[in-house]
Amino acid sequence: MEKFLCGIDIGGTKLSAGLIGRDGAIHDKITVFDHVDKTEHELVEQVAWLINYLLQRKRLQESDLHGIGIGFPGHVRYKDGIIITTSNLKGFKNYPLRQAVQENFRVPVLLDNDANAQAFGEFKYGAGRGYESLIFLTISSGIGAGIILNGKLYRGITGTAGEFGHTIVNPESSLVCTCGNKGCLMACACGLALPYLFRRKLEEGIKTTLPLPEDFNFNNVDGKLIKKGLDSGDPISRAVILDCADYIGIGIYNIFQVFNPPAVILGGGLLCWGELYLNRIRSKFSSLARDMIHDRIDIIESGLGSDAGLIGAAALLL
Amino acid sequence: MEKFLCGIDIGGTKLSAGLIGRDGAIHDKITVFDHVDKTEHELVEQVAWLINYLLQRKRLQESDLHGIGIGFPGHVRYKDGIIITTSNLKGFKNYPLRQAVQENFRVPVLLDNDANAQAFGEFKYGAGRGYESLIFLTISSGIGAGIILNGKLYRGITGTAGEFGHTIVNPESSLVCTCGNKGCLMACACGLALPYLFRRKLEEGIKTTLPLPEDFNFNNVDGKLIKKGLDSGDPISRAVILDCADYIGIGIYNIFQVFNPPAVILGGGLLCWGELYLNRIRSKFSSLARDMIHDRIDIIESGLGSDAGLIGAAALLL
Repeated sequence: MEKFLCGIDIGGTKLSAGLIGRDGAIHDKITVFDHVDKTEHELVEQVAWLINYLLQRKRLQESDLHGIGIGFPGHVRYKDGIIITTSNLKGFKNYPLRQAVQENFRVPVLLDNDANAQAFGEFKYGAGRGYESLIFLTISSGIGAGIILNGKLYRGITGTAGEFGHTIVNPESSLVCTCGNKGCLMACACGLALPYLFRRKLEEGIKTTLPLPEDFNFNNVDGKLIKKGLDSGDPISRAVILDCADYIGIGIYNIFQVFNPPAVILGGGLLCWGELYLNRIRSKFSSLARDMIHDRIDIIESGLGSDAGLIGAAALLL
Repeated sequence: MEKFLCGIDIGGTKLSAGLIGRDGAIHDKITVFDHVDKTEHELVEQVAWLINYLLQRKRLQESDLHGIGIGFPGHVRYKDGIIITTSNLKGFKNYPLRQAVQENFRVPVLLDNDANAQAFGEFKYGAGRGYESLIFLTISSGIGAGIILNGKLYRGITGTAGEFGHTIVNPESSLVCTCGNKGCLMACACGLALPYLFRRKLEEGIKTTLPLPEDFNFNNVDGKLIKKGLDSGDPISRAVILDCADYIGIGIYNIFQVFNPPAVILGGGLLCWGELYLNRIRSKFSSLARDMIHDRIDIIESGLGSDAGLIGAAALLL
């Protein structure tokens, strides 16, 4: 029997474990939401328990696994399997997660950044099939990314390459990023920016048709609210989407100039904004790149959607 | 006898041809300045003549050459050996330079962008020795760059990767780049920006101690004038240098976030500004990168200086 790849996708909200075939198909999957408050040790125990549970459920042995691939939302020292830091879970400062999980299994365990795993998943099984290189961006409250060059993940010396979200695209911006700097792409163009952008549009005199309470806290403006506004024809929501798209268009233009890649793949929560968003990203990019495009570059949507992380974590083993 | 590498460094002002050893040493070199007004065909003839002249002068045969490597200042379609476009010489639109030179020789001919050649020269023989990856930036009137990842030049699908100079670092800037966009790194941070920056400092009320004529044309402000100002204690020249350095610091910070490289190597004319400039670049970078640096990153000066292009063009053959 062909061996399964075991994927573990650890997020800031949910944790998924799955048995993935070599064709990228999910054969079984389990998702939990109670990992967030666990200590490092408890989380490792939970991961081990989930894997054994999946094996039992399929009447499999550990030896039926090719290995275990883990995607983690934070800075990962790839070669050593160590989490340097994360802003999505408590603790995990310089934590040797790979080794801690490995102590429970004899099959090989790999650990990588979650966006790297997603990028590799898209490359192997998703929208990135057929491209030899690609840049993957996941746009939600923050921006994550993975770089595939000539068929391989490019990670840099530490393992933290691909932080396009922290590149500075406007040093005059007053928008502060989670990293503490001003004018990062992440501060200007994704979930983090929405409360500021929404309020600024209001101050500029644009009216919202969203039914907001008197004491509305603008920090609650998120991608879902803007999507609701878009669907109901709210002018502010529309304007906010266009602003965000323009910055992502600049970000992709910068990626184009630096990597000259055949494809940029976009995933993440804000893609729910649909065609208005994606088309504006593409047109902003085109208006900047113009006659500097000598070979086609495709700006396309993720093919695996929310499963990219799970499938990609498993694919790291290939 | 060991074979020589023949390097051809075509620039917007000078053209050098040289015989380079496998150790990177220049055994013979000839530089001309009259190539600028030649047609494509005339330039090819000149290159062929220079190579044969060098061979004769050393009493060598063509078969004593390992090959001929050419660095050209423009967009190069590497795989096909075609120049797509250049703003440094007239003509050369979609011109198959590699083939045209090849028709004169039996040894292999390679063609690459000049900054790529310089980057590879630094990697093999200059300040980049010992690093497995590096980013090379050459800062003069414009900004060129080359990317070495895991020991190899990364060129992208067309061959135009590494255009950090055209990444947009300030969409609110009014500074226009040669590409037509506003707020490119190149528009804000190098020779192109000097006339604007100089005038703005004057308008801000800073006094210059440079002896400028009444009818001074600010378009004549270049790196050499600013260097003269720096050496004579001119406050405007100093302020302009710091502004440029800050933008290069931002550019290197963005490179750091994207590539997580062990080294960034700086070359080009503006490096004549010396320690004030280089130290400010480093301190701007550090103020942005802070605790996000997990492994050492060296920001260092080119080791080959103005010979990087010639030696690098030859090194492309290795």
